[in-house]
Formats: sequence, C-alpha cells, structure tokens
Amino acid sequence: MIQIDWKPDKSLATPVYIQIKDFIKEKIETGQWTVGTRIPAQRALAQLFGVNRSTVVLACEELIAEGLLEGKSGQGTRVKNNTWSLLSSAPPPDWNQYIKRGAHQPNLPTIQDINRWEPLPHIIRLGTGEPSPEIFPQELMAQILHRLPAKIQSLGYEEGKGLYPLREELSKHLQSIGIAASPSSIMIVSGALQALQLISIGLLRRNSTILLEKPSYLKSLNLFPSSGINMVGIPMDEYGIQIPFVKQQKKKHNASLLYTIPSFHNPTGTVMSLERRKQLLQACEEGQLPIIEDDVYRELWLDEPPPPPLKAMDKHGTVLYLGSISKALAPGLRIGWVAGPEPVIDRLADIKMQTDYGSSSLSQWAVAEWLASGMYDVHLANMRDGLRLRRDTMLALLADEFAGIAEWTKPSGGFYIWLQLPAAVSLRELFEAALQEGILLNPGNLYDSLAVSHLRLSYSYASLPDMEKGIKKLAEIVRHMVK
Amino acid sequence: MIQIDWKPDKSLATPVYIQIKDFIKEKIETGQWTVGTRIPAQRALAQLFGVNRSTVVLACEELIAEGLLEGKSGQGTRVKNNTWSLLSSAPPPDWNQYIKRGAHQPNLPTIQDINRWEPLPHIIRLGTGEPSPEIFPQELMAQILHRLPAKIQSLGYEEGKGLYPLREELSKHLQSIGIAASPSSIMIVSGALQALQLISIGLLRRNSTILLEKPSYLKSLNLFPSSGINMVGIPMDEYGIQIPFVKQQKKKHNASLLYTIPSFHNPTGTVMSLERRKQLLQACEEGQLPIIEDDVYRELWLDEPPPPPLKAMDKHGTVLYLGSISKALAPGLRIGWVAGPEPVIDRLADIKMQTDYGSSSLSQWAVAEWLASGMYDVHLANMRDGLRLRRDTMLALLADEFAGIAEWTKPSGGFYIWLQLPAAVSLRELFEAALQEGILLNPGNLYDSLAVSHLRLSYSYASLPDMEKGIKKLAEIVRHMVK
Repeated sequence: MIQIDWKPDKSLATPVYIQIKDFIKEKIETGQWTVGTRIPAQRALAQLFGVNRSTVVLACEELIAEGLLEGKSGQGTRVKNNTWSLLSSAPPPDWNQYIKRGAHQPNLPTIQDINRWEPLPHIIRLGTGEPSPEIFPQELMAQILHRLPAKIQSLGYEEGKGLYPLREELSKHLQSIGIAASPSSIMIVSGALQALQLISIGLLRRNSTILLEKPSYLKSLNLFPSSGINMVGIPMDEYGIQIPFVKQQKKKHNASLLYTIPSFHNPTGTVMSLERRKQLLQACEEGQLPIIEDDVYRELWLDEPPPPPLKAMDKHGTVLYLGSISKALAPGLRIGWVAGPEPVIDRLADIKMQTDYGSSSLSQWAVAEWLASGMYDVHLANMRDGLRLRRDTMLALLADEFAGIAEWTKPSGGFYIWLQLPAAVSLRELFEAALQEGILLNPGNLYDSLAVSHLRLSYSYASLPDMEKGIKKLAEIVRHMVK
Repeated sequence: MIQIDWKPDKSLATPVYIQIKDFIKEKIETGQWTVGTRIPAQRALAQLFGVNRSTVVLACEELIAEGLLEGKSGQGTRVKNNTWSLLSSAPPPDWNQYIKRGAHQPNLPTIQDINRWEPLPHIIRLGTGEPSPEIFPQELMAQILHRLPAKIQSLGYEEGKGLYPLREELSKHLQSIGIAASPSSIMIVSGALQALQLISIGLLRRNSTILLEKPSYLKSLNLFPSSGINMVGIPMDEYGIQIPFVKQQKKKHNASLLYTIPSFHNPTGTVMSLERRKQLLQACEEGQLPIIEDDVYRELWLDEPPPPPLKAMDKHGTVLYLGSISKALAPGLRIGWVAGPEPVIDRLADIKMQTDYGSSSLSQWAVAEWLASGMYDVHLANMRDGLRLRRDTMLALLADEFAGIAEWTKPSGGFYIWLQLPAAVSLRELFEAALQEGILLNPGNLYDSLAVSHLRLSYSYASLPDMEKGIKKLAEIVRHMVK
C-alpha cells in the first residue's frame, strides 16, 4: 500500500481540495504512483490528510473526470493513466494523438517557457514587451469605465469591421499622423497579432514567401510557418532594412509581402530614417510588393517623434497599416486596427467574423472613449515620462555593469535594447542560469536564429528596483560564463 | 468633361467629405467614370459641391490613398482604377489576387449577405441568434462597470488560459451543473466560435471527418472546410442525434470527433433526452470518439432545466465542453470557455496565444464580476421571463398566420423555431422577397444543404411589434409564392 506523509496547508489561498488534487496528480505524473496503483479508501484518505471526506471526494472526482483515476464499484479507486502525455493505448480517446495532429504548430519551446514563467509573481522579467503595471493609468481608466454605462445601450455582435464610433475615432487619429483612411477602410482586431494571423490565412498562399527585417519579432511566432509560409530575413543597418537586399530577395523568392516595423523596431529599437522610408516605398511600388507596416510603437517616442508612417506617403494603396493600443495603453484591452485598401479590409473582416465574431465591444467602447475624451493624449504624455525614466535607468545600469563585455545602442523610443553579448556565452545556458536566479530573458535567437549572442532587453516591464537587481545579477552570470 | 449635378446634404450626420468621397466612388465603381477620366480641378469641384476647397482635398486624398484616383503634378486628377474587384493589371500591387489567395475560405454568400444586412437600422431580423438589445441588462451592467475600477490594478496580457479569477468563478459555475473542472482545465476563449476555430487548427488533421447533427449550426460556418476537414451530418429525431447512425458513420468515415448541441439545439430547438445522452456517451466511449459538447444555450431553458450536460456524466475525459456568455448575457463581451482534459486545454491555450494573445481582460473581469456578485443569476431569471414572452408571442403569431401552410414544434428553451415551409417555396426567392420588405431571414439550407424548405426563426432578437409585422408579412409572401 502506498505511503502518504503530507498534509494540505489550510493557511494557503489555494483551496484544500485543489492542494490534495495537485498532490495526487504529482504522485501520478512523476510516476510515483504507477498505473493500477490502488488509492486508499476516501475515508482513510480524509483521515490521512486531516480533512472532511467531502473534500477528498471532490478532489478524486476531478481526477476521475480528468482520466487519471478510476473508481470501480467494490474495488476502490485506482490510478488509471500515468499522464496524458504518456498515454499510449486504447480508451479513453487518445487526446494526445489529437494534440499532435492539428495543422497549427506549437509555440517555439523557449516561447512556451516564457509564457509559462511570465505569470509567476516573483520573477523579474527583463525582456517582456509589455508596459509595466506601474505605468498603468489606473485613475484615468477608472474615469473611462465610469463613463461607459451612459454610452452602452447594449453589447451585441458588431459588424465585421468593428464598432463604428471607434472606427470614426481611429480615422481622426490616423489623420493626425498623416494617414487618410475613412472608417470603412479601417477594421478593428484583437491586437496586431490577430491582424497578422488573419493576413496569414486570408491573403497568402501556402509556400509563399514574406520578407522581413533580420532580426524580427515576427520570427518569434510560429504563425506564418503554421500556414506554410516562408520567412526570409533582410539585413538591417542603423537606418533600417537595406533596400538592395529587399530587391534581391524579392526577385529570388518571388516574395508576396514585406513585413516591417519601421518605428522603434522590435527587437533592435531602430528607427527607419525618412530617406530610407521613401526608398523602401518606391522599391516596393516598383516591385509590386505590398507592405505590412507594423507601427504599434509609434506613439512611444522618447526623444522626438519618428518620421511619418510609410502609409502616410503611400499614394497607391501599397501599404497595409497596423496599429494597436497594446503597447501604448494596455494590452489587456486587446484592441488593434488595420487600415488599407477597402477590398482587403473587407476580406480580412469576413475572415475575422468566421474566427471570433469580432473583438470585445466593451473594449472597443473603452478605447473609443479614450480617444474621444482626449484622455489618451494625456496618458501618452505621462507614459512617455515613465518610459523615459526607465530607459535612462536601464542605460545607466548597462553602462555600470556591462561596459567592456557587451554592446548596445541607445533607443530613442519603444521598449527595447538589443544587447550583444560575448560570443562565448551560450544563450540556452544563460536563459537557464538566469531563470535559476528568478530572471526571465528573451534570447536573441527567437528573433533571428543566427543572433546567438544577443538578448532583447526591455525597459518597459520590470520595476526600477527589480531592473537594478536583475541587470546586476545578469552581469554577474555573464561574467561568470565568460570566464 | 464629366457632369456633376449633385450636392452634399449638410443636414446629414455623415461628414460632408465622406459624402463627396462616396459620390465619386460610386461614379467610379459603377463605371460611370472610367479609368483615365479627368476629374475637375479641386477648386472647380469645391464650387460645384458648394463646399470649402479643403473638404474636397480631404475626399480626394483618401481616394488617392485607396488607389481609385491619381494626381499627377501639372496634369490634374484622373481616375486610376475603376474598382479593386475589377482590377486586373500591373501596379499598384494586385491586392485582388491576394484576396483570392489565402487558404481560408470566404463566408457562404448568404452568410455574407446576412452579415452585411444585419447592421442596417430598419431591418427586421427574424433569424438572428442574438439576444435583443431590449433584454440587455443595462442597469445591472452599469453596476458591474462601476465596480470594475476597484478590481482592476492593471490590464496586461493574461496567461494563455485566461484570467485566473474568472476561471475560478467558472469552475464553481460548472460545478453547479455537475461538471468537475479545476481552473487549470478551463480556458477562456472569445466566444464558443473561437473554441471551434482553435480545435479545427489545433486538434484535427486535414482530410479528417467530424460528425454533427443534421441540420447543424456548424454547417453554416466555413471554418472546418477551410482547414480541410469534412463534416458528415447524422439524422436527428425528437430526442436528439440518432445513435445507430453515429456508430455507422463513425466507422464508415473513421471520424475524428463528434460535435453536438444537446440542449436547445441550433437550429431545431431539440433537447436531447437523458436516455439519449447516456447512450451517446457510451457509444462514443466504446468507439473512442471524442465529443465536443456545445452547450451555449443551457441557461436559456423556459419550461424546465435540460438534463445534465454530457460532460457531467463523463468519467473518462471523452468530452470537451463549450460554454459562453454570448447567448445568455451579451455577445459583445466575446467571452466563452472550454473545459476538458488538461493537456488538450494546454494545447488549445498555446495556439490561442499565437493567434490573439488572449481575450479582452476587461471583458474577463466584467464576466468574473457578473458571476461572483450573483447578478448573473438575477439576470438569468429576468432573461428567461423576457425570452418566454417572446417565444409565446412568436408561437401565437405562427398559429395565426402559418396554420395549414407550415409546420413547427414548440421549443422549451433557446432561441429557435425550425419552420418547415411548403416544398414549392424557393428559399433563395423567399430570402430576396423578404429582404425587399425589410425582413432578414436565415434560410434552412445554411444548416443542412438538403433543408430546402426550412427557415431558422429566432424569437430572441426582433422587438415584439417588429416580430408581429415581420411574421405577418412573411406569411403573406409565402402564401403568395405558394399560389
């Protein structure tokens, strides 16, 4: 008979039955309780754990429902499967086969790790591309929320392109950065990522090729590969993507699209110069190569506004423009937008209706109110102040801690510093070692498989004390690894 | 030179420059102004339209950006393309080719029509599967929104499975209908439709087959066909899907999944009996055929609660359970959930993170508060009262207007009445004729290609006066067509 030498901790926030469930699960999943193992009777378990029998019953019921335990009348409870991921034979349905089956690829393992670790409370996130909870405009958001009931008569499905009042506000907003787009050529998406997903399934053929900066945020997503689309990286210099290579690779691969982040590029922080923007647009017009302009960091300039968007100079409908509230205000609203030729917008909106019937109307009303009330501009000014302090703090820390062992440039906006480490450092080892110390990193090879000595640092997320602690510890680890 | 004998109407809500833009667009798109046509100078246009020159400039700029006009210095403005959908040659990039290209199929034409007509203000929607704005709980929602600022510290990205406090509430909620699911085996989606989309790309192989009721809501979506998945309909009787055919078709097609709406089936309104539920679960367990249980209408019982969900009787992890707030509270929140074996939930959550980084946190907080505050139950009681009145009104109208020419049964919950019309009625003609009279219908063949004499009526959406007007007019049209 199995041994149990553990009791749930009633002082914890986690309900006792969940603690019991997790305990049993771990025993099973780690192979400590193998398939066929008999579990003590529920009455005995209750005594062993020092809890009511009903608590044990609840835990066991869930484990039975999850297929880990089975209860046969007269025979007590037994371990039925050791774990879903090892599940190999016969009934219940072998979900594991299904999990491996779908066309869509899983996230990259490092991204899965990052997604798994990010929610943990004490982790220091030095690479997270998200505004810190500390700069969340709690006061202003409360004001917005209090105004919403007067606006919202009902919360039904919206038309495919999204809430009309929000598209009207966005039309004005885009006009303020030089882009002429009427509400009918704008669609709302649940963040720019969703726009990319819709483009990947709605506008591109399998085996087609898109060009993108090297490195690029897009490389860290499995979205395009999952739709059978190839990504070809184009070298950058300090002024952005290099035009001769765009032309060359466009011809070589018969590329279908170019994806670019011209302002405060993710992960390098580069701002494409005005001259380069003009050259790129001209090259793409000549080559009939449509552009996806991902401009989600535009508002987050810290020294001076970036040059106008490509879309503002686009007189031929070459550019599909992506914007978002996620970086500048709050990712949790899940609101972004696409502006471009109306038939393209219509097509993408039709697909969106098939995938999620539109974005949250509540979020759409909230963003419309942010824009209409002028509070968005108030917030942006505060946000830039907060972000500037963070950037300058991280730059000062880097100067103190990494002088001589790493290289970087000062970004003039956005979130990121692209840190080049000594070639001797193994990113995987660094990632693991940092995690041991409670620091979560975004390794450079997520964004370019050859960037094996880079880290994407972000000054947007960690608190200032955490940032200091994190950068100092990171420098220690790197120095140790270089030795 | 072209003639202009039209002026914008300044009393309208639509901005004047948009009216001008739409006017020019229509001229071009209808072929009245062909490619190469010279547009009068902006000064002259301003005079013709009786507006400021800046208004004309704005309209023309947008049309240039959309690729319809082109302005060459010294040569004035010309029509550049007649319309994107006829666009055939050379630069600008031929977006039209892209639109046809993507792997994802467009919505069915009738669904596109429906999506297009639904937002129009004066249309009477007799088939819309959405709660009427009239039964939207405006008062209670205002209370919820006023409570949110105290809960929301920040609105960042959530973990892949969704906001933890909401999953805790849902865990309790599911327990109340007999389903044991811990927060870690629940994930939040942007409505049940998104869950289906994630399943189609995450768990199913191309060329696999899923079984579903015949007719079925799922048939009206192009989601599964877009992923290369076949759908095979199984006949129903008054107790639900028929088991012998499930077994037969599972074998014949080596089917991968069964999709069912056991409670208040869409579109027939059928409630699967307890006996049938047990048989179905047993058959699927024996055949190792996983079930997707779409239970989004469960709360909307009008006479008595339906039998327990399949998931509540599932001791082997055979069932993946879908729920949603869209039908019972407000679709615009875009919040649904999936409960099932944890590895499956993990896989789906990983894909969700790749497609939209999670659902609106604002919506998630709102739904958590609805559940935690108990206001959801208050609302459901009101909702049932409102819906019962609507159902009884529609049944009375049908008895008055359709006796002798159509057949239907009384639904005991949900939104739908499955109306069987005389065989002589052409659904396409009926759809068009009704639209002429301002009535929007959901033809039966959307849900089963052989249901060429059925309509899916919904008593959930139209106001009572509209419902009366609509049903009377519909009966007139049908009687006329039968003659």
